[in-house]
Amino acid sequence: MELNKLDVEILKEVAGIEGVPSGAVNIRKDGEAIIRSSSSGIKISSHPEHGGLIVEIKPGIRNEKVHVPVILTKPGFRDKVYNTFIVGEEAEATIIAGCGIHNESHSESRHDGIHEIIVKKGAHLKYVEKHYGQGKSQGKKVLNPSTVIRLEAGASAELEMVQIRGVDDTCRTTVAYIGERASLKIIERLLTHGEQNAESNIDIYIEGSKGSAQVLSRSVAQDSSRQLFKASLTGKAACFGHVECDAIIMDNAKIKAIPALIAEDADAVLTHEAAIGKIAGEQLIKLMSLGLTEKEAIETILNGFLR
Amino acid sequence: MELNKLDVEILKEVAGIEGVPSGAVNIRKDGEAIIRSSSSGIKISSHPEHGGLIVEIKPGIRNEKVHVPVILTKPGFRDKVYNTFIVGEEAEATIIAGCGIHNESHSESRHDGIHEIIVKKGAHLKYVEKHYGQGKSQGKKVLNPSTVIRLEAGASAELEMVQIRGVDDTCRTTVAYIGERASLKIIERLLTHGEQNAESNIDIYIEGSKGSAQVLSRSVAQDSSRQLFKASLTGKAACFGHVECDAIIMDNAKIKAIPALIAEDADAVLTHEAAIGKIAGEQLIKLMSLGLTEKEAIETILNGFLR
Repeated sequence: MELNKLDVEILKEVAGIEGVPSGAVNIRKDGEAIIRSSSSGIKISSHPEHGGLIVEIKPGIRNEKVHVPVILTKPGFRDKVYNTFIVGEEAEATIIAGCGIHNESHSESRHDGIHEIIVKKGAHLKYVEKHYGQGKSQGKKVLNPSTVIRLEAGASAELEMVQIRGVDDTCRTTVAYIGERASLKIIERLLTHGEQNAESNIDIYIEGSKGSAQVLSRSVAQDSSRQLFKASLTGKAACFGHVECDAIIMDNAKIKAIPALIAEDADAVLTHEAAIGKIAGEQLIKLMSLGLTEKEAIETILNGFLR
Repeated sequence: MELNKLDVEILKEVAGIEGVPSGAVNIRKDGEAIIRSSSSGIKISSHPEHGGLIVEIKPGIRNEKVHVPVILTKPGFRDKVYNTFIVGEEAEATIIAGCGIHNESHSESRHDGIHEIIVKKGAHLKYVEKHYGQGKSQGKKVLNPSTVIRLEAGASAELEMVQIRGVDDTCRTTVAYIGERASLKIIERLLTHGEQNAESNIDIYIEGSKGSAQVLSRSVAQDSSRQLFKASLTGKAACFGHVECDAIIMDNAKIKAIPALIAEDADAVLTHEAAIGKIAGEQLIKLMSLGLTEKEAIETILNGFLR
């Protein structure tokens, strides 16, 4: 199937690609895989039960990428998909997921992406997921990603989860189980505006000795938007965990941040930091004295904060 | 009524007094006021409905103290009391509360102290509450303090809430409403050991412009004890709030810390820090190299941490 102009535009936003990328790729559009190809190191096949994907990254491969973006352009379309990603032992790979919705209708468009990720012994994964919505109509753009990730002994993973503009409603769920000497880093960036709602629930269980986890969340709430951020970190062994959430609140927005530290082992070290506040006045004045308008200065500060 | 040796011993632990102090005082023993006297600036009377106290601190007075300790010595006694404290406009006073339980029986002894505190315009209150249990039997010592505090415009209050050894079960509830330019500081110190359970719930609502709140919690969980710390900070105006909880976990103890920051105004600045971990190894080694045994070194570090 050919990609039209709109498809190309959305794919650029959510996956940073111009047209169809080389290597392993699966592009899902309005509930169907319109483009799929495996590579020598990465096999993409259909999930036998749920109609989603199984992405298998071969043990020991290095520096390979797989793109699995999803686009929704059919008005009022609802898509639910189950994908499984298996990163083989000692492999090193990057998964670029993400979802973009274009909706000009009056009905809600919605994508529920249910991901299971297994990072085998000694493997390293980088996982990038961007969410984006466009279209000026009343029809909502809803994105509910759900991710369960398991890290085996000595594995490591970095998840970068970003919500750019245009998503009216999101309920993000991330659950992680961390084995011995395994380490996980989650970076979350979220921007809400208008009347948008965003909820993020992160639950991390550090089960193995010398396991570690780090959550870095930054968000901006503009206009009358609402954000709820929950992150729970459970240490069941000698481990290290840190959660950091910083939020900028503007206009009539409301933000709730509810982290939880749960130490179930005397050798668990868990820490947390959070701050909610407005843009620093001095920063604004400095940029405006350099010739920027107030609006430009605010945008510059927010871009820096969410980068 | 005369104080016996045991009464004197418990009063010293929970209120730092030797016998009956001068000034305004109410000593409650096993459900009854055994000693009561008002002072020129502080009037103590019976609560018309609930049989507890009404403590009225006159407007404008300076540097006055009132002692209202509670002791339970009757085996398996259950005591519930409602007290109201009113700090008059521009007054400056210290309230020393606290409860000690001696229980050598096989039945549970329990005190539920329900306190309402109103700090009027421009007044300043220091409130100290210590909890302590003793007795080697199976009978539990249970203390459930519940405090609602309201700070009017320009008022300030510092609450120091300490649980020393010996309390088997506690569920502490503190709710605060903070007015314009008013400021509240809560200092909590908690030690649990054996099979003890401790839960602390703090809910703070900063309602007035330029209001501020600060919660500093430090706790130590030893043996197989359990602690749950919840602190929720809601900013409804241009305000500043900070919650800090540090905990030392030892042996087979378990600790949960669940703070919540809720910003409902774009000019609310709310921050939080938490850390759960064990005693730093270097600190221990340093003290032991100075001649302390391991046990003495641990005690020295814990005393410093909870001071």
